[in-house]
Amino acid sequence: MGRIKTFIHDLLEEQYAPSLRARVFRAGLIALITLNVLAYMLETVHEISAPHRHWFLAFERFSVCVFTVEYVLRVWVCDQCLVDDHPVLCRVRFMFRPLMLVDLLAILPFYLPLLIPMDLIFLRTLRLLRLARVLKLGRYSDAMQVFGAVVRNKKEQLAVVCFILCILLVVASSLVYHFEHEAQPAVFGSIPESLWWAVITLTTVGYGDVYPVTAMGRIMASLIALLGIGMFALPAGILSAGFVEWRERQEKPKVCPHCGKRIE
Amino acid sequence: MGRIKTFIHDLLEEQYAPSLRARVFRAGLIALITLNVLAYMLETVHEISAPHRHWFLAFERFSVCVFTVEYVLRVWVCDQCLVDDHPVLCRVRFMFRPLMLVDLLAILPFYLPLLIPMDLIFLRTLRLLRLARVLKLGRYSDAMQVFGAVVRNKKEQLAVVCFILCILLVVASSLVYHFEHEAQPAVFGSIPESLWWAVITLTTVGYGDVYPVTAMGRIMASLIALLGIGMFALPAGILSAGFVEWRERQEKPKVCPHCGKRIE
Amino acid sequence: MGRIKTFIHDLLEEQYAPSLRARVFRAGLIALITLNVLAYMLETVHEISAPHRHWFLAFERFSVCVFTVEYVLRVWVCDQCLVDDHPVLCRVRFMFRPLMLVDLLAILPFYLPLLIPMDLIFLRTLRLLRLARVLKLGRYSDAMQVFGAVVRNKKEQLAVVCFILCILLVVASSLVYHFEHEAQPAVFGSIPESLWWAVITLTTVGYGDVYPVTAMGRIMASLIALLGIGMFALPAGILSAGFVEWRERQEKPKVCPHCGKRIE
Amino acid sequence: MGRIKTFIHDLLEEQYAPSLRARVFRAGLIALITLNVLAYMLETVHEISAPHRHWFLAFERFSVCVFTVEYVLRVWVCDQCLVDDHPVLCRVRFMFRPLMLVDLLAILPFYLPLLIPMDLIFLRTLRLLRLARVLKLGRYSDAMQVFGAVVRNKKEQLAVVCFILCILLVVASSLVYHFEHEAQPAVFGSIPESLWWAVITLTTVGYGDVYPVTAMGRIMASLIALLGIGMFALPAGILSAGFVEWRERQEKPKVCPHCGKRIE
Repeated sequence: MGRIKTFIHDLLEEQYAPSLRARVFRAGLIALITLNVLAYMLETVHEISAPHRHWFLAFERFSVCVFTVEYVLRVWVCDQCLVDDHPVLCRVRFMFRPLMLVDLLAILPFYLPLLIPMDLIFLRTLRLLRLARVLKLGRYSDAMQVFGAVVRNKKEQLAVVCFILCILLVVASSLVYHFEHEAQPAVFGSIPESLWWAVITLTTVGYGDVYPVTAMGRIMASLIALLGIGMFALPAGILSAGFVEWRERQEKPKVCPHCGKRIE
Repeated sequence: MGRIKTFIHDLLEEQYAPSLRARVFRAGLIALITLNVLAYMLETVHEISAPHRHWFLAFERFSVCVFTVEYVLRVWVCDQCLVDDHPVLCRVRFMFRPLMLVDLLAILPFYLPLLIPMDLIFLRTLRLLRLARVLKLGRYSDAMQVFGAVVRNKKEQLAVVCFILCILLVVASSLVYHFEHEAQPAVFGSIPESLWWAVITLTTVGYGDVYPVTAMGRIMASLIALLGIGMFALPAGILSAGFVEWRERQEKPKVCPHCGKRIE
Repeated sequence: MGRIKTFIHDLLEEQYAPSLRARVFRAGLIALITLNVLAYMLETVHEISAPHRHWFLAFERFSVCVFTVEYVLRVWVCDQCLVDDHPVLCRVRFMFRPLMLVDLLAILPFYLPLLIPMDLIFLRTLRLLRLARVLKLGRYSDAMQVFGAVVRNKKEQLAVVCFILCILLVVASSLVYHFEHEAQPAVFGSIPESLWWAVITLTTVGYGDVYPVTAMGRIMASLIALLGIGMFALPAGILSAGFVEWRERQEKPKVCPHCGKRIE
Repeated sequence: MGRIKTFIHDLLEEQYAPSLRARVFRAGLIALITLNVLAYMLETVHEISAPHRHWFLAFERFSVCVFTVEYVLRVWVCDQCLVDDHPVLCRVRFMFRPLMLVDLLAILPFYLPLLIPMDLIFLRTLRLLRLARVLKLGRYSDAMQVFGAVVRNKKEQLAVVCFILCILLVVASSLVYHFEHEAQPAVFGSIPESLWWAVITLTTVGYGDVYPVTAMGRIMASLIALLGIGMFALPAGILSAGFVEWRERQEKPKVCPHCGKRIE
């Protein structure tokens, strides 16, 4: 029993030095997750899903089986690395880890309708939860962890910029609502509706479904665009700097110019 | 009297070491301001404001009361930290501080119509002033101050870039007006009208309400787009660098953990 | 005579230590240039120019007089600083300096029609030359010179990026032309016409007057957009870095960590 | 024979110290390639290509001749620098170099239809291969090599960002499909179709042919736009940093002019 547990633990959870066997196994899981995401997307194409409905269903069932077994095994072997705790308590705490919740979310949309009777609208929303499977990739890729580290490293500046962006959105939508409301009551019907215009303009998407037509509205929109667009590009600039710094930190062991010793 | 004044001063104005009581009180004020901004936005949604008009009015009255009391108390206690001056003179000078003017602006739209009879259009514009309440948040957040510091730190480069952007806008709108005026007299009726095109194109919003249709106009617009778009992304790049530097300046001076000397 | 020449030279050309008198005089010239640009723009607004046509004409005549006198005086006094040359040769060479050519271009549109009979279309194009007056501002602002220095400093990277952008534009327009030509012969009529789409898409303006509609065209356009948009933001990133570096060079005298002496 | 080979090798392949003769010859080849690309583009303009069809054909034949001779010569002389190998084997290996494959691709569209009978659609696609000639420029310009070096240098960060962008595209298109499918079955017919919306929105192109109209769809799109647009600007930021660093690396190692020691 103990040897099986160790074997499975090595297969699923060992982070630092996974065996070749574990790496092959995990590559298989990554492929399965990717195929699931592809299936989720192709299922909405009527020409593809209609004639192959049973294949999609079979693949969904197979995937849920694998993911369920994976989930159960993860919970079972979790006491391998969390030994200093009560076996039940430690498992409950383990189940509330973010990645375990994602794993649960990824299989729930299959089991819930079997347990609770549901109406169609709720079922459709539940299907959306299957998207959580794409987040399961987070466990196997460094990308997410690097990205998280960069965001955490720059969180102060990002918070400052987010606060300013929020205020800018409120001010922009209020001003343009004030000047455009009478000329275009349909699209600038209220400030929350004008927010759509403000977001689409300040992110420079500019679909062209909503735009000011009065002289004052255009002057305001121009000023807001000129002032605001720089703001909306700030997070990208800050994150880029974060990515570049992150790599430098990886590569270069800094050395103190006075004593020549390495500084972290 | 003196003890009440000190108490209120600590509650409202103490910057460096506010007591827990002051921090709770200020959190309440921040919540009230945020609710005010939300109410300002929701009031324009007819479906929400029509049936609850009296609630919105009551909340507005309550907020103005609180903000008025806050304003009066701030003016009253301001001599706590500005003691070396004549009590009236110092208060007048205090009232002209930017944040105090914002506070005044935030309550004026309520009192002005009571004092002076006004027509409807002016009343509507006055309502816009209630947006000043969002700026009251500036007092309680570091974001605004950080942002101000970053802009001030990079003001030379920003001025250079702004000057170049202005010239670019004038040249772009004149050139495209010249080539498009005859083909589209409605949208390129004059150079100031073409400025709308220039702003929307060079900020890359591109609604699609105005675009050149002649061959020469398109060639000009392409050249301007290729040359100019880089320019419009410059402020963001400069500000991003400013934010990153600002944080580095916060963190430093770094000290070598081995020899204790400062590292630049 | 010599004293007048010195006086005018100080007024117009002295770069390093202009007297107060010269600075006031130059501020006047800057104001005149700015008013000229504004007049140029407002003249195209029929509602403003029609009833005030004689005012615009008078202002134009006055400006041309001032700029002509300025030009002649500049040529006259140029031997103050270029003494080691033949007086005529040095003046001719002086007249071919970029800023002097801009000055000439700024007054030519007024004199040329008086000298040579012209048809209406050429006259209209000539009027466009009055825009050169905006470039006269370059003489009085550091902005242009700083900008020039930054571009020169980063010219290698900018050249690399420009070359890649050109190739990207050619490949993008050719590919989308290939897939969209049959579905939309009107807008994707030829590769040069598709270039308009490529420029408007890759600069992320996206007016929405031209976009692919076939599946293959959209897939190509998506890939090009994802790959190419990063490229088009590169010049801005490189220039931003240049601006930031430029200021650092202004501010910080670097010091060698080995000998402590200053390095340029 | 040997001298002719050496002469041609110097003309075509010598990288480090090409003679003046070689540089003139290569400039001629670059001009020919550029003219080919221009001809490729102009051939699609009916007004130009129809009356000059025989000129285009003659130029195409001439170009293919030159490129074929160039290709054959390159293969012939390749043993000048790869001497330590079997003459046939080394040539075969040489022919599989990327730049040699590009050279082959650039002439194949002319020869293939002569060898194999083809239908019209395949012929048209084959013509697209002539675009490969633009890549022949890569051999003669540093730009491509610099660009390649920068991308390679930042490949880790770019991979992280690409992975996150893919996940973002999948999540964005799924969410908006879910909320917009019923309101706009024509444009949000399936998730792969929604991907077109996601790409055009997150790259901020925003043609305006597809946009959400339901309240929930707009809220989702706003959130995605605000979160995601920063992500899509990241590659540009990372590459810009790469370009700036690349140049710094070219310039370095800096040496202190006072003590002669190297400064990092």
